[in-house]
Order: sequence, then structure tokens, then C-alpha cells
Amino acid sequence: MEAVFGGVEGGGTKFVCMVGTGPDRVVDETRFPTTTPDETLGRIVEFFRRPRTGIRLAAVGAASFGRIDLDRASPTYGYITTTPKPHWANTDVVGTLHDALGVPIGWDTDTNGAALGEHRWGAGVDADPLVYMTVGTGIGGGAIVNGHPLHGLLHPEMGHLLVPTFDGDTFSGVCPFHGRCLEGVASGPALQARTGRAAQELPPDDPVWDLEAQYLAFGLLCISEVISPQRIVMGGGVAGQAGLIGAVRRHLVRLNAGYIIRPALVEEEGCAFYLVPPGLGSKAGVMGALELARLELEREEDERCPA
Amino acid sequence: MEAVFGGVEGGGTKFVCMVGTGPDRVVDETRFPTTTPDETLGRIVEFFRRPRTGIRLAAVGAASFGRIDLDRASPTYGYITTTPKPHWANTDVVGTLHDALGVPIGWDTDTNGAALGEHRWGAGVDADPLVYMTVGTGIGGGAIVNGHPLHGLLHPEMGHLLVPTFDGDTFSGVCPFHGRCLEGVASGPALQARTGRAAQELPPDDPVWDLEAQYLAFGLLCISEVISPQRIVMGGGVAGQAGLIGAVRRHLVRLNAGYIIRPALVEEEGCAFYLVPPGLGSKAGVMGALELARLELEREEDERCPA
Repeated sequence: MEAVFGGVEGGGTKFVCMVGTGPDRVVDETRFPTTTPDETLGRIVEFFRRPRTGIRLAAVGAASFGRIDLDRASPTYGYITTTPKPHWANTDVVGTLHDALGVPIGWDTDTNGAALGEHRWGAGVDADPLVYMTVGTGIGGGAIVNGHPLHGLLHPEMGHLLVPTFDGDTFSGVCPFHGRCLEGVASGPALQARTGRAAQELPPDDPVWDLEAQYLAFGLLCISEVISPQRIVMGGGVAGQAGLIGAVRRHLVRLNAGYIIRPALVEEEGCAFYLVPPGLGSKAGVMGALELARLELEREEDERCPA
Repeated sequence: MEAVFGGVEGGGTKFVCMVGTGPDRVVDETRFPTTTPDETLGRIVEFFRRPRTGIRLAAVGAASFGRIDLDRASPTYGYITTTPKPHWANTDVVGTLHDALGVPIGWDTDTNGAALGEHRWGAGVDADPLVYMTVGTGIGGGAIVNGHPLHGLLHPEMGHLLVPTFDGDTFSGVCPFHGRCLEGVASGPALQARTGRAAQELPPDDPVWDLEAQYLAFGLLCISEVISPQRIVMGGGVAGQAGLIGAVRRHLVRLNAGYIIRPALVEEEGCAFYLVPPGLGSKAGVMGALELARLELEREEDERCPA
């Protein structure tokens, strides 16, 4: 029997599930829309329980939208705790999967999962610290430091950095908490609210893209100054807009103003190796979830057999 | 012979040197003004070479102002590379100390050193990630993540976070690179330039302190969202101003707007355990330098005898 892992990438719109060990060994894959927790978790369990000849599921990793509880000492460890997504507050993801599947369940944020996937197999191999930033329906960031996903008081919430005003921008922002935080002014819904059009329908020469690039560059400079990552991977539906990443690099170099003296932050050519698109494309999150499964299995084995 | 360590805290104004192993065992200590590199490094060497009965210096750690080179693969590893401090650009600190003293030399930024000292013995014991922020002549931050000082592309430069405008503030900032970054609007020299008076001469009810608290709270919220530290220690001459830390806590809770749902960031009472003054007072940096010495000795021993 070949031991493989299960990966779950949980987003507010859809869930992706995979059986395999990484990009070179994908046994099975599925995706379905995010509905109620009962129905969605039921579909996950059904997918992983399907009989597959010669295959044994050794552990499952879940990388989830949130906010989520990552504190192993907490009674709500493994829960999605608070979220604007209807019905999903207080959902016990890890407990439900563990009870149904009987294997170790790895657990982290969607962006830490994507950071882990890119660090293991994608555009962030050998970069540590590595930051993964997603810009789409929401904005969020995760990080790998010393090989481990970054946690602390909670988990990184890089999408909610408060932002100054660029170009006399008077838009009040769409974040229900902060108004004008990064997600409030630069997410897909923010672009839609600003222009009345969906991001993917805005032409590449619309002036809103330069403003978008300035806000993203501001956030990425904050992150560069606080964590000093060796690389930043930027993914998500809005980030893939033609020309956007180049404009973000230009503004990142401009805002740094020569202060952090590294080619990555003083030249656009150097920045092209620093701020990069995902190597795994849209699979970073679910691949990272496979890696979360592997790490959790290792952790539980280490606990049983201390060195 | 008792094996002890040497610690050097290098600041733009003064250097502090210590022989010992930590707060409970200080053998000797000295401080002198920062003059030229030759003279200053000469005084450090002279201090550590003094004969002390029954004592053997096993390693020295240096926590320095900068910017500094922390990349062990770089030809300028151990240098202060670029700095506005006259004469100090391109100064080989680690090489000079190693050649003169013949012991392993640990090396990090002044703020990573202070973070390490507070993590080992001060207000940040058991907090990981831990951030140390200094607010004085300059503003800077260091961090400990998974027990190690945080490095990457360079080192954290948390003092140069770009800031929005609060209360219609029209001050253009004193940072030669960014104008209005955190150091540009909230350091000691910024307070002096705003008010014409030194920070320590400004009465506690001067309205500039509330503005100061807002900028610091903005920076600390950025750091909280990017690293998710379990605690932040805030030291330095300006940070010690009566009442300032309480005002910063109030604004930090206000700016978070209930988003990160942790007592540390939603209640002033909780924030009193999150944003704290240094447990080691002004000794955080030099104590951290002793710990840098110990870590470097361990590292070199591990390299000689791999497990």
C-alpha cells in the first residue's frame, strides 16, 4: 500500500481536495462550491473515504479561510472561529475530519498553506523567510520562517494593513472593520466598488490599476521592512491581471527610496526575482495542504517516539 | 577558569561592553562615546583583553547599529555597511574583534540583540514571536521567531514603515530617505524638529504626545498584522516618556477596530500584557549581546562536531 496524503484548500467560494504527495504524484482531485459547513465537510469526507486501490491515506492537511484557531492548547483549536461567511463561524474543521477519517489532521491558514506549497515546490524553494500574498476576493498573506509557517498571538493578517492615501484617492474602502485597509481599498470587491466593473473586465490601461499597484506596493514594503523576506510570491485572481505585477515592482522600488540597499528593492530588474507569481499557479494552496499533512504526521510520530 | 562571554552593544552615541553570562553574573562593564571606528574598536579590544583573575572569555557577541551585513556568505559579513554616522560606513566589526581576541564573534542588529536579551531574561520570556521596538534617537525593531533572531533579505527595518497622516498633521518628516516614515515623524529628532524642544523637555500634557502615540500605534499594528507576535517590548529614550505607552495602547486597540480578536488588541487591559516596557531596562541590548556570544559558540561547536 502506498502511503499518500490528503490536502484540503478551503476558500470562501470553493473547496479544493487532493490525494497525493506533491506536484509529481497527484492521485485524485476534486473541487466544489463552499455551501454550508455540514454539506461541505460531508463532501470532503466522502471524497477522502472513496476506495482507491493500493492507496492508504496517512494524514490530511487543511488550509482554510478564517480567522481560524491555531493554538493547540485552546478548546477551539482547529475551528474556523469568526468569519463574515454565513454559517461558518465556530466550525470545528479539524475535529470533524479527524473523527470521520481517523488520521492526523494538519491545520493552518489558506495563505500559510500556499506559502508552504510555494516554499516546498514552487517559486519560493530555498527562500526563507518566504511570504505568500494573495490578492483576489480578499487580500491575505502567510509566511514561512525557519522552515515553519508563522504563527503567534494569532496568525498573520497582512491584508488588513492600514494604508495612507495615494493620488488624492477619496474612496472610503470596503472593509467592514477598517474601511481603508489594504483589503478595503485593493481587493476585487474594492475595485468593483470603485469602478462599477469586475476586476477582470477592467482594461489593462485603466488608471485604477496604477492606484491598485501603489497600494499593493505600500503593503509589500511594510512586509519587507517587518519580516525581511528573501522573496514574496503574489497570487490570486486580481494579482494575475496583465501588467500589474510589473507596476507593483516599480512602485515598490520607488517607495523604498533606496533605503534597503538590495537589488531586490532598488532596481526593477532585481525586484523581478523578489516579487514573483506563484510557481504552482492556482495549486499552491492545496499542494501546501498536502505538506501540512506530512508535517502533522511527522509531528505526531515525534511525539510518540521522542529522540 | 570560569568561561564567560563578552557583550558589545554598539549605538550611534555610545558603546556598552560587558563581561559575564547574564543578569545574574556580570563580571565587568564599561561604556564610552562612539567616536571613530579605530578608536572605538580599540577601546572594545582593550576592555576585553584586560586580565581578570579566574575568568576565560569564550566568545563575544556584538549587537550593532547599522545597516549591517548578516549574510555569512557575503564578503562583507560582519561589517557595518551603510550608515549616516560619519566614518562608520564599511567598518569590519566582526573581523576586527575576531583578529584581536581570537574567539568566536556573534553578530546581529542592535534591536535583534535587545529582542534576544528580553526573550532570554526580560519581559519576553516565553513569548515567541517576540518583537523589540526602540523609540529614541532612531526607531527600529527586531524580532525573535522560533527562538532565533529574524533575518532574511537583510534584517528588519521596522522603523522605516511609511505612515499615513493623523489629525491633519502637515509635518514633512526628518527621514532623509522617506520623509514621513515612522522614524521620520516619531523619533526624538522628529519631536525636536516639530516642537523646537527636546523630547525629555516636553511636558506630558503637550498635545504632540497624542500624535506621537498614534504614529507608534500605527507602526505596532502593522507589525502585529505581519508577524503576529505574542508580545511587543517597547524601549528607548522617547518610549519611556510618562504616560506614552498607555496612550499607544489606547490607539492600538482603536486602530485594530476589533479585527484581531485577542484581548491583547481589543482591550486596554489585555494590551497591558502585550505592549510592555523592557524587563532589563537599558541593559536589554548588551545582555542580548552576551546571548549572541553564547549562540555563536554553540554554532561553531555544532559545526565542528555534527550530530
